[in-house]
Formats: sequence, structure tokens, C-alpha cells
Amino acid sequence: MFDVRPVAYVIGLLTACFGAAMVLPMAYDLWAGNGHWAAFAESAVITAATGGLIAMASANGVGDRLTIQQTFLLTTGVWVALPVFGALPFYLGATEAAYVDAFFEAMSGLTTTGSTVFTGIEDMPQGLKLWRGLMQWFGGIGIIVVAMVFLPELKIGGMQIFRSEGFDTMGKILPRAGEIARSIANIYLGLTAACALAYYAGGMGRADSVVHAMTTIATGGFANSDASFSAFPPAVEYTACLFMILAALPFVRYVQVVAGTARPLLKDTQIHAFLLTALALVAVLTAWQLLEVTDAFEPALRKSLFNVVSILTGTGYASADYTLWGAFAVSVFFFMGLIGGCAGSTACSIKVFRYQLLFASIKAQIRRIHAPHGLFQPRYQGKPVGEDVLSSVMSFFVLFTVTLGLLAVALGMTGLDFITSLSGAATALGNIGPGLGAQIGPSGNFGGLNDTAKWLLAAGMLIGRLELLAVYAIFTVRFWRA
Amino acid sequence: MFDVRPVAYVIGLLTACFGAAMVLPMAYDLWAGNGHWAAFAESAVITAATGGLIAMASANGVGDRLTIQQTFLLTTGVWVALPVFGALPFYLGATEAAYVDAFFEAMSGLTTTGSTVFTGIEDMPQGLKLWRGLMQWFGGIGIIVVAMVFLPELKIGGMQIFRSEGFDTMGKILPRAGEIARSIANIYLGLTAACALAYYAGGMGRADSVVHAMTTIATGGFANSDASFSAFPPAVEYTACLFMILAALPFVRYVQVVAGTARPLLKDTQIHAFLLTALALVAVLTAWQLLEVTDAFEPALRKSLFNVVSILTGTGYASADYTLWGAFAVSVFFFMGLIGGCAGSTACSIKVFRYQLLFASIKAQIRRIHAPHGLFQPRYQGKPVGEDVLSSVMSFFVLFTVTLGLLAVALGMTGLDFITSLSGAATALGNIGPGLGAQIGPSGNFGGLNDTAKWLLAAGMLIGRLELLAVYAIFTVRFWRA
Ligand SMILES: [K+]
Ligand SMILES: [K+]
Repeated sequence: MFDVRPVAYVIGLLTACFGAAMVLPMAYDLWAGNGHWAAFAESAVITAATGGLIAMASANGVGDRLTIQQTFLLTTGVWVALPVFGALPFYLGATEAAYVDAFFEAMSGLTTTGSTVFTGIEDMPQGLKLWRGLMQWFGGIGIIVVAMVFLPELKIGGMQIFRSEGFDTMGKILPRAGEIARSIANIYLGLTAACALAYYAGGMGRADSVVHAMTTIATGGFANSDASFSAFPPAVEYTACLFMILAALPFVRYVQVVAGTARPLLKDTQIHAFLLTALALVAVLTAWQLLEVTDAFEPALRKSLFNVVSILTGTGYASADYTLWGAFAVSVFFFMGLIGGCAGSTACSIKVFRYQLLFASIKAQIRRIHAPHGLFQPRYQGKPVGEDVLSSVMSFFVLFTVTLGLLAVALGMTGLDFITSLSGAATALGNIGPGLGAQIGPSGNFGGLNDTAKWLLAAGMLIGRLELLAVYAIFTVRFWRA
Repeated sequence: MFDVRPVAYVIGLLTACFGAAMVLPMAYDLWAGNGHWAAFAESAVITAATGGLIAMASANGVGDRLTIQQTFLLTTGVWVALPVFGALPFYLGATEAAYVDAFFEAMSGLTTTGSTVFTGIEDMPQGLKLWRGLMQWFGGIGIIVVAMVFLPELKIGGMQIFRSEGFDTMGKILPRAGEIARSIANIYLGLTAACALAYYAGGMGRADSVVHAMTTIATGGFANSDASFSAFPPAVEYTACLFMILAALPFVRYVQVVAGTARPLLKDTQIHAFLLTALALVAVLTAWQLLEVTDAFEPALRKSLFNVVSILTGTGYASADYTLWGAFAVSVFFFMGLIGGCAGSTACSIKVFRYQLLFASIKAQIRRIHAPHGLFQPRYQGKPVGEDVLSSVMSFFVLFTVTLGLLAVALGMTGLDFITSLSGAATALGNIGPGLGAQIGPSGNFGGLNDTAKWLLAAGMLIGRLELLAVYAIFTVRFWRA
């Protein structure tokens, strides 16, 4: 077996930092004058101490390179370790949640899924609301770094197509991750600040502005009240749409804009495809609402825009129960969630560039059928795409679909009905947030599910967030033999 | 544009033969002494005359080779033309069906889907029951020939992997199709006769035995009564299982057995995978029923076996409403329908060999991740598989999934609820038969759907039966320019 110490070292360090971050909600609870700060103090001590001990114990095995196996283990390990500790404030704090609920909430936060087990969120201690927002915010920047460094390096899901872009530290994964995190961090922080200010200007309270800005830029979807965004004025809804879209575009383009060139941002066909998809869906759903549900144009447009952007980017805020718009809307929103945003953003699910690659491949194949001796290479962003990228994308698609089926069957086995099983599996794997049906639909909540279903859904979130193969590879015998 | 006359000639001839075949149900109605024979006489004259005229009008353009474009047009053209005429007896006859219903029933028959719009089938004139059986029976052998000649030639859905097997007439598609049809015909007829005798011995009436044998060997699923197979004794259910399984295995293996070698049949990994899948599903569902539904072992085993085989092979007979077995069973049966039988049989849906190829490819990719410089070629039946086969299979999978989504959304647009839309789209594309939900579930019926939904589902059956790309290629500009 390979040396796990370098992996344990990084996970330990990150866990310790994560524990240190718990000081923020603790301070907030202290400042707000509620006694809840103690729960964060305990959690912070447990988390920072455990992380620190692990890091110290494995510090003697650290080099400056990670093998492929170590990189895999690190990626998955981080997203297992942090939720284990991120759950503590819910377990020890005012929510007095069972550990499975606490873990579900933390996993849902750190994977930016946004499904919640809690009701009466508006009455939670301030610190806990902030902690939910912070977890999504950390998860969001974490996933950008993973998408820009780890997945291309591991050649998962066709992400190697983004390998050459922007950064290169000659195969040294950790320095490269650090460099990218640094250049993304300012942009991420800037977008979050801009979003918070815009929310505040639109009439949201100060604390709500900050937390919602975090969960918007992370396309996470945790809200500070059960009513989610239906509680806010129209201006806030439009603002949210703008920032959800910005959060679902490839962050490397912003790095380039900051470096002085907006051309790559404007010329990116992935962005074009994403925006056109959103536009088409908004147009169709607005028309549908005007024909079937309402006569008022602006609300129809706004509700369509908000909910399409929310589901397409995988944010998962609700501003209206679209399952009441009729059968058509239900089907559209279900499949919309399986499209997703752009690669290299905080958005999730299958993602637009994969559909572009798949369709390019199918197009090339139809040409080949018509002219069997011609050579037709699928293209993406004008460049020919290698077979390895295509088969990697297709594997992702197949694994996603098959996992969706197996997860739905497993959820059915725990007693959930067909719609809850199927939509629950989709919303977990796609890191979206709401499911369908009375229980877990846009007006519902995951608290009432059985414990097994919660564990399964949490596993689904992890698997989906890390683009499946990063998790699955660890479960092969070959992996541990290397 | 290319010459459509050779295509029109073959379609005309087949239509004329199809019209001639209507003499069979006519004779049966005459013999049974009901006046309904006149409807078949009219239909036969219209069909045979139209077909004959088309064939004569285009006879001067016939050569002995078809271009790729002509082959595409022929494949799809046959499955559009025959339902148009196959609908006539339902339209002109005792059912007095609207044309959309008649067309739906004929398309459902010729694609071996087996969804029906009619109730009170037991009270239909004998000739109509026979006609339903005959259409499925013709559709069944037709699809075997398509799967063995046309799809491999057109390189659709990875079927080119079966190209070298058994037959070769040096690229002359029509002679080759004729040769294969001849060698398959005896086996097809023999299996049908054996099945009919076994049904008869099991206690089924004479007419029912023949019609059900036809729809069993075609994995079609039309039954002679609304109760389907729940009306028959256990021995008949076991018999049906045996023959449904036989009908879902690759028919080329039977040709080899007749030629004296059983080895290819016994060594075919596609068959192994199919049987193992069936076995696992039966075991799980039997256990589930014993835990949750019933205490009686034999009925639990029999109902599980019958319904698993019926859905997995895409036959679609019902012997129990499995949607009453609980949420788990519903999910399992939904996804089971998306597995399907073996290639080169009458079975449909995605099919076992595609999953084998997809998993082989994913396995090779995981190995490549772990050892980036190794060469790992996916294998099937022990032989390495080319990239073109894999990308063809993956395109099939993607097109199937995306079409399923779009069809479900379109059905939702016509007003169907989510479960009806989704399962209706799946059962049509997969040529299975029953859907889920109160309306189109195993105890339901497609008669109550709106007309638009019926047209959409009929189109879905066609697209699914011809493995998607054979139909889609016709809708490209490039196709008509060639
Ligand atoms: K989300
Ligand atoms: K069928």
C-alpha cells in the first residue's frame, strides 16, 4: 500500500483550519448575546485539536509531490472529513440534532447541495445560520479548486480538457492548488461582497445579506428562513439571478478579466450554450405560465427566471412552488436539474460542456455514417477533441445515470415512494437541493426521511460533487495495491 | 438528392405482402362466422393495392445495391409505412377506433411494444385478436433481421460489433437480409409452434395459445384479454417465462445450434450477463415479497420470475400489479425496463451488451487513471473493442437518455402527470409495454391519453425500436444532400 501520511497531513491541516473557522459563528453568537456560542467553542476545540494531531502525527511523511493515488484519496478524504466535524455544531448546539441529521446538513453544506433537514430556520441561533452559510461558501471555493486542479489532473469526467488553461506548476499538485486558490480567492470574495451589498440595497437585512451572498456565490442554496427567497422583494430576486449566473460561469474567465482580457469570457462557447439554455427555458416557462397559470407578465417572467436560474445553476433556492405550475413544469424542472452550469464554477450536475462534447461526438458519428471513409473529429471551442476526453465524458454520463438508478432503487428500498426516490437521488447526485413530491419538493424538507435514506443521500452528494469517478476509484482493489 | 425508387420499391413490396397477410385474420373471421371479415377484406385490398402500385411505379429504378442513405430510409420507411396500413382493420373494423388510436395500436404491434389503447379485448372479433398477434410476430422477425443486417451495416448503437457473425453476402444488403430471414424464419416458426403447443398443454385455449405464442416469441406483450397472464394457471406462467427468455437471446446462436454447434450459445457472455441479471432480480424481488407482501413462497417466486422476465425482456405481459408491492418494486421495475435483453433477438431497450461494453470501457479508464502510461483496451467476449464501437454505444446511451427526457417533457406539456410522462416515455422508447401510475400502469391502458400524447408515444416506439440514430440520421440536412 502507498504512503497515506501526505494525505493525512493535508486533511489534518484543513480540518484544523476548519475548526479555527468555527470561531466566526462563535464570535457572532457571543456578540448577539446568546449563550449558544459555547457549542461552537466545543466544536472548534474538538475539530482543531483532532486536525492538528493528525497533521502532526503524519508530518514526517510529507514530500512536495503527490502520487495519483494520494491525490484521489485526498480529494475524497477532505469531503468526508470536513462534514464529520462540520456536523458538530448541529449535534452539540441548539438544534440538538441526531448525528445523522447533523452530518446530512454538513454534507449538504460542504457539497453546496443545500437540502436541509431543519425547519424553523429563521428561529435558529445566529451563529448556526452563519455556519450553514460558511460551510457552503468554503465548499464552493473548494470545489472550484478541485475542478481546476484535481479533476483535470486525475482525468475525471473529461475535465482534462481544461488542463492547459491558466495555471501550471509542473505537476506539483499542492503548490498549484495553492496558487489557484489565491488568485480565485479575491474574485470569490469580491463577488460575495458585491452580492451581499446588492442584497442589502434591495432590502434584505444585514446578516441575511451576508449569509445569502455566501450561499448564492457557492450556488449552495441554504436560506435563512423556511420561506427561502419567496420572503424577499422582486429586486432581491433579480439580484439573486444575476449572481447565481455569475457563480455558474468558469472562474478562470474572471481571473483572465482581472488580468486584463475579457475576450476569453466573451468567446467561451460553454458560456454561450449555458446562457442560451437558460434563456430558452425562461421563455418557455414564462409562456406556459401565461397560458396556464396567471395573467400577470412580470411575476410570470420573474418566477420563471428565478426558478430556472436557481435549478439550472444547481443553487436550489425556491421563490415559488413550481410543482404547482402543472405537470409540464414538474418534468421540465426535473430534467433541467440534470443539465447544470459551467465547469470550473461552483455549479454542479452533469454540466453544459459535457452535453456540448456529447453532441459534438454524435454529430461526428452521423457524418461518419453518411461518409464512411471521411475523417470527422468532434470539436470543442474550435479545437479537435481527443478520444480520451470523449470516452471520459461518456463514462461520466453513464456512471451518473447508472448511479442515479441504483440510488433511486436503494432509496425505494428504505420505503420512499417512486417520485421521492427518483428526485431525491437526482437532487443529491446533482447537488441541487430540492426534490419533487410533497415530502422533499420545493416547499418540503428532508427532515422526515428515515436515517438510512439520509445516509444514502449524503453519500450521493459526495459522489456527485466529486464527479463520481474520484470516489469510485477508491473502491477498486487496484487502487490500494498501487 | 439520391434515388428513392429502390427504397420505394422494397417498401411497396413489403406493404403488398403485409396486405396479403390480412387474408389470414379475414379467413379466421369468416371461419368463426362473424361478419367482421369484411373489414379485413377492405383493408387488405387498400393495402395490397397501394403497396403494389408503389412497387410498380418505382420498379424501373432498382439495382442490386443500396447506398447507405437508401438503407437508412428503407429501415425507417418500413416501420412508418406498415403501421399506417396495419391500423386500417382497427379503423374500419369492429373497434371503430379513431385513426390515432388505430395507428398507436399498429405501431405498438409492429414495434413489439405491446401498449394498447383498447379495453375489453376478450370481446374483440377473433380476427382482430389474431391481427394484433400477427403484427407483433411480423415486427419480431423484422427486427431480428434489422438487428443482424441493417444496424451493423449502418454502424448504429455499436451493433457493428456483431457484423462478422454468421452471414456475409459481400455488402449486398437486400440479398443478405433475405438469406438471414430465411435461416431465422424456421427457427422463429419452430419456437412459436413449440410455445403454442406448450401453452395449449398448460390449459390455454387453442386460439389464445397461437396468438400468445406469437406475442411471446416477439417479446411483444399483446394479450387476448385485459387480464393478460393473470388469467392463466401457474404452469402457463412458467412456460411463458421459458419462451420469453428464449426469445430474448441472440437468434444467431440458434442458427449455429441448428448447424451443429452449441458452443457459441453456451459461451456467449452476453447471455451469461443477461441470465445472471434476471436471476439476481428474481432473487431480490422474491425476498422482498416474502418480507413485505406475502408468506407464500411459490407464488412469490412465480410472480417475481414472471414479472422480472416480462419487463427485462421487454415483453410487458402482466401477471400481477407489481406497483402494489411497494415503492421499492416500482423503482426496480422502472429501471429494469431500461436494461433489456440481448442484441439480435426480438428484445429491445438499451440491451445487456451495451452495459457490458460501457462497464468495460469505464474499467479500462479507471486502470488508465491509476497507471497513466499503460495501454488498457476494453474487451468484449474476450476480444478488444475498437474506439468506434465504444463511441457508437455511448452515443446510443446518451441519445436514449436525452430522448427519454425530451419525450417526457413533451408528454408533460400535453398535460400528463410526472410519473405518467416519465414512465410512458420510457416504456415507448424501450418498447416495453406497461408504464407506471394509475393510468398506464400494469393494470391500466393507454386509451385515455390525449391524441398528441398518443402520437408522441408512437413516435417514441419507432425511434426506440430502430435504435434512435437510424431515425435521427434522416432528419439531418446532410442526409438529403448526399
Ligand atoms: K445547491
Ligand atoms: K413489449
